Amino acid sequence: MKKINVAIVGASGYSGEELLRLLQRHEHCELKVITSRQYAGQPLEKAMPRFIGSDLSFSAPDIEQIIATCDVAFLALPHGLAAEYALPLAKSGVIVIDISADFRLKSPARYKEYYQADHPAPELLSTVVYGLPERYRAAIKNANIIACPGCYPTSAILPCAPLLATGLVSPQGIAVVSMSGVTGAGRKVDLPYLFPECNESLRAYKPFGHRHLPEIEQELAFAAGIDAVNINFIPHLVPVSRGINSTILLNAESGCTLERIAEVYHQAYDNDPFVRVLAPGSCSDTKYVTMTNFCDIGFNLDLHTGKVILTGAIDNLTKGASGQAIQDMNIRFGLPETSGLL
Amino acid sequence: MKKINVAIVGASGYSGEELLRLLQRHEHCELKVITSRQYAGQPLEKAMPRFIGSDLSFSAPDIEQIIATCDVAFLALPHGLAAEYALPLAKSGVIVIDISADFRLKSPARYKEYYQADHPAPELLSTVVYGLPERYRAAIKNANIIACPGCYPTSAILPCAPLLATGLVSPQGIAVVSMSGVTGAGRKVDLPYLFPECNESLRAYKPFGHRHLPEIEQELAFAAGIDAVNINFIPHLVPVSRGINSTILLNAESGCTLERIAEVYHQAYDNDPFVRVLAPGSCSDTKYVTMTNFCDIGFNLDLHTGKVILTGAIDNLTKGASGQAIQDMNIRFGLPETSGLL
Amino acid sequence: MKKINVAIVGASGYSGEELLRLLQRHEHCELKVITSRQYAGQPLEKAMPRFIGSDLSFSAPDIEQIIATCDVAFLALPHGLAAEYALPLAKSGVIVIDISADFRLKSPARYKEYYQADHPAPELLSTVVYGLPERYRAAIKNANIIACPGCYPTSAILPCAPLLATGLVSPQGIAVVSMSGVTGAGRKVDLPYLFPECNESLRAYKPFGHRHLPEIEQELAFAAGIDAVNINFIPHLVPVSRGINSTILLNAESGCTLERIAEVYHQAYDNDPFVRVLAPGSCSDTKYVTMTNFCDIGFNLDLHTGKVILTGAIDNLTKGASGQAIQDMNIRFGLPETSGLL
Amino acid sequence: MKKINVAIVGASGYSGEELLRLLQRHEHCELKVITSRQYAGQPLEKAMPRFIGSDLSFSAPDIEQIIATCDVAFLALPHGLAAEYALPLAKSGVIVIDISADFRLKSPARYKEYYQADHPAPELLSTVVYGLPERYRAAIKNANIIACPGCYPTSAILPCAPLLATGLVSPQGIAVVSMSGVTGAGRKVDLPYLFPECNESLRAYKPFGHRHLPEIEQELAFAAGIDAVNINFIPHLVPVSRGINSTILLNAESGCTLERIAEVYHQAYDNDPFVRVLAPGSCSDTKYVTMTNFCDIGFNLDLHTGKVILTGAIDNLTKGASGQAIQDMNIRFGLPETSGLL
Repeated sequence: MKKINVAIVGASGYSGEELLRLLQRHEHCELKVITSRQYAGQPLEKAMPRFIGSDLSFSAPDIEQIIATCDVAFLALPHGLAAEYALPLAKSGVIVIDISADFRLKSPARYKEYYQADHPAPELLSTVVYGLPERYRAAIKNANIIACPGCYPTSAILPCAPLLATGLVSPQGIAVVSMSGVTGAGRKVDLPYLFPECNESLRAYKPFGHRHLPEIEQELAFAAGIDAVNINFIPHLVPVSRGINSTILLNAESGCTLERIAEVYHQAYDNDPFVRVLAPGSCSDTKYVTMTNFCDIGFNLDLHTGKVILTGAIDNLTKGASGQAIQDMNIRFGLPETSGLL
Repeated sequence: MKKINVAIVGASGYSGEELLRLLQRHEHCELKVITSRQYAGQPLEKAMPRFIGSDLSFSAPDIEQIIATCDVAFLALPHGLAAEYALPLAKSGVIVIDISADFRLKSPARYKEYYQADHPAPELLSTVVYGLPERYRAAIKNANIIACPGCYPTSAILPCAPLLATGLVSPQGIAVVSMSGVTGAGRKVDLPYLFPECNESLRAYKPFGHRHLPEIEQELAFAAGIDAVNINFIPHLVPVSRGINSTILLNAESGCTLERIAEVYHQAYDNDPFVRVLAPGSCSDTKYVTMTNFCDIGFNLDLHTGKVILTGAIDNLTKGASGQAIQDMNIRFGLPETSGLL
Repeated sequence: MKKINVAIVGASGYSGEELLRLLQRHEHCELKVITSRQYAGQPLEKAMPRFIGSDLSFSAPDIEQIIATCDVAFLALPHGLAAEYALPLAKSGVIVIDISADFRLKSPARYKEYYQADHPAPELLSTVVYGLPERYRAAIKNANIIACPGCYPTSAILPCAPLLATGLVSPQGIAVVSMSGVTGAGRKVDLPYLFPECNESLRAYKPFGHRHLPEIEQELAFAAGIDAVNINFIPHLVPVSRGINSTILLNAESGCTLERIAEVYHQAYDNDPFVRVLAPGSCSDTKYVTMTNFCDIGFNLDLHTGKVILTGAIDNLTKGASGQAIQDMNIRFGLPETSGLL
Repeated sequence: MKKINVAIVGASGYSGEELLRLLQRHEHCELKVITSRQYAGQPLEKAMPRFIGSDLSFSAPDIEQIIATCDVAFLALPHGLAAEYALPLAKSGVIVIDISADFRLKSPARYKEYYQADHPAPELLSTVVYGLPERYRAAIKNANIIACPGCYPTSAILPCAPLLATGLVSPQGIAVVSMSGVTGAGRKVDLPYLFPECNESLRAYKPFGHRHLPEIEQELAFAAGIDAVNINFIPHLVPVSRGINSTILLNAESGCTLERIAEVYHQAYDNDPFVRVLAPGSCSDTKYVTMTNFCDIGFNLDLHTGKVILTGAIDNLTKGASGQAIQDMNIRFGLPETSGLL
């Protein structure tokens, strides 16, 4: 079988590093180009000692080179910049899997509201597919630009969507309270992310208006089949390297029982290799999913308040970013969905 | 000034250790008796190497000895057992400051519901004072048995109570989502609390029906001036040693603004030495309160959903247990409230 | 290709869990039997939620069943007990890969000195092969009982042995100072391993006489070609879950330079897939090897004191236990040495 | 009693923050001036939320202002810069307690060798006192410039010095292997100190030639009464916020027994309030000294190799920097040595 030739554009951050880690052992891929402005010209093993022994080297990003040599390009770039690469690459037939936020929102107005800039390529939005395989597998098969979901949204949408779709819970009054490990902030050299500032620290940040909020709202509205939902999304930074746990409160609708929830989940996810639904009444634990592409879902029903309480756990760098991107690639190229991910 | 003679009953857990740490340097106290069944007969410095150089020794608990030598007894015992000590001690004039859960709930029925046992001393409940100084300072001054609040409740009640009392927020639909360090589980030698089981782990547990739930509900109902409130309380275990952060969602009532919240807090807490209200729009961070008796309160208003989002941070062993107990003692014995706590 | 049928005896500890994680995705293996007294009868996914979705179940250990169904048995048992299984299994033709300490020492006398018991099967010692592939690959190919090296010894022997063999360093005066993550203590439910006892803690333990000492001494003596060496081995417990770093001081012999050390290492390890020699003057970092089977080796030369300073980093559960065991199996069964390990 | 008026010059790092924490509750001190170029003009509570409620503000450093208002100035500045302040302040009668490295080495040549710059004020070196109270208490009483020891040196010198002074151990062949928490790197916003780069990481760095090496060698030579010693000093970075543990190997001289070591220590340290000598055969644990000014010393004798194995544990920010500086101030100003430190 011919190998897929792969480019990683912007490979020097934590998502890029995770792409490298996973693609290196992906039997159907060959890493052709890995770019980094910061490390251009440096051997990978020098810039990232995790990869000692690798014979790859970073190059400066060069769109023509990628077009000439690659079948697929993963963009692990800051938002705004990703679109600049996506357009020419996609035009030339390179499949684009974008890990940035540039193409996640369908509405340019929402993009502008949350990213304080005009959308860089609004004309592409209608053709882009939101790369959450469990929701959009069929469309991913034919997509030319795939917008990889954000980490927090993945941990919230997977637990909520099937219940909203069946009406077991209300789209009104949803609260997503999430905790993230520090790699979620990227390899950002900034005071709040120093070890002594994060260790033994628990803190909410951006308790409303976080950039992942409109993405979650968009997908929950789609799932519920309504125009819009307004939710609370409150992220927290906690001292782990990897892992997100989202705890989600939703209003149970009449007829909602643990048994019904279990049925709905099993119907939704029994054929999904990376979603694991826990036993009724359990809660997810990030330590069981870190370094994997799994999303674990726990569910509880609090009769005292009429709330369904969901928990979703993922590794923010794997199912929350690079693993999911590879899952998308596998689907797009007709490979087994789990290739390189187990 | 004559020193207060102090007993710590059940000093071998984390709360007991914190009492020892704080009382050792309390200028108005003398530790007369420290008991532990497990360590009876052992020098403190041997059982707890943090106290190398101390000449204290653990003894087996002996009520008569405490009555004969002490003015105050801190009970750091499992629930159920604490009441057995409280009764005879209080009868003999020893002031009892109970860190267990035995006297926190005013309703024996609620106690039975959550602790699966008849209340051990229902006849005392009416005279016991709930030892949250910021709410019950006057009563603490004359109390003979003081029930120290639980750690989670402290982090939730202090942020919520003043807003409920003024009607800026509704008592309906409150959700308290809390994260706790592992000392919150006590010095319990059990698999889930091993380092490798907690490190790099984020997990909700007891997402409804936790024993601190009725305590929070009781105090929020008192604050709101109504009979009962039903809330969600969802605790999480996260890999820090010390610290609780509670993030609380409440429905804003009309007229609720950041300015009004700030006013209410300043009115409520300006004279309280251990409550620190952050600037509007800020979130608390446990690292600024660990190893202190402070409770930091942050507040936000999400106009998009009409929610007030509060954050409360404490050290679970200090303001959440032993520090608060000493604050209660200071009040009860007419000492400066901050003695031994700054 | 016919799959190798595998038993894991004593699969409920951290080494057992790591064997399960690795063997589950090993394309040439089939897990036939996993035993645990504690979890016998329980589905794996219930006892260890990391494996949700697995259809394996724990059984009580049954030697006959293993003989009837398996080609290889990994023993992840306490020392003393392992030998009881090794003997009948090996006799019946099941290849035994023992992760315990029972067969690591060639000398029953040394075993007795350090394990306070007579060696359980001294007659087997001469036929057992010490399962460090980089030193004993040829013998492993034909071994029926393979004694997997200890975690600390692996991190110390791999850096030291080639230099001792060539005489670049002296066998006299070696000091191995090691730091280990807490999984190194096993899944032992004991006070010193609780999260709050390990977090924010740095401590040496057993600064002489640790059970891994005679094992290191044995192998360093073999490498140096002398009867015995006396070394210092000082282990420390530090708050990471996985990872060992050993920092080793050795006396440089005349002619020892960084260049010569590099040459010796490259000659020794260039064909070893799991040993990575860092650039001269570098130090290893466990975070680049955790969750891998690599051993990273750094080397420095301090002219000021005439010491060679080596650092060796491994994941204690992978290269330090279960990964190495699988590497041994791969070699023994003629598979590519890296099968299931990249 | 008149309060001592205090300046902290360069208060924005971790040592400065620890000085602020400790001096705020020091009953005999008044913080008059706290300087920071970075935060000049900002309220302390805004720049460092740990100090919410404080009415202090940072100012730009102004030597004249300090001279006009302060009795003592703590310099928490980068090396090189500290000397620029020390000279004019000391001349004007302000007692200088320097936490930087500028005055620790008696030899300008050694300074130049390790700091790659000419010593900024060699003429002062003879009058400066090395601020390790347990060694130089008498001189500190009259010093005008006190050079606070480095963190690593404190943890190494206190265990070694008395044994060297009595000849129980040899000054030849000493190896100091240390582990430090990440605050030891200062509040340096640099990639290697990000949480995900430190968490789950164990690594040696600067395995020879570290700037604390000549300081340790100087003091051990003084203790041994010889001109010079050459030692190995190998620091490691480990994932704790605070704490240093040094494990030290020394050659036992004849007559060296655990009993003799204990005697020597008790003679040396029985009157020192901040040195705690553990029971023979014990090892120190940083968790028992963090947030305190204690240095815990453990000692072992390995007859197998003839090595004395010492362990010394301190909090790098307290006994390793700011606590020790305050201890020096207490001594210099005739206060009880433990003022503000228990």
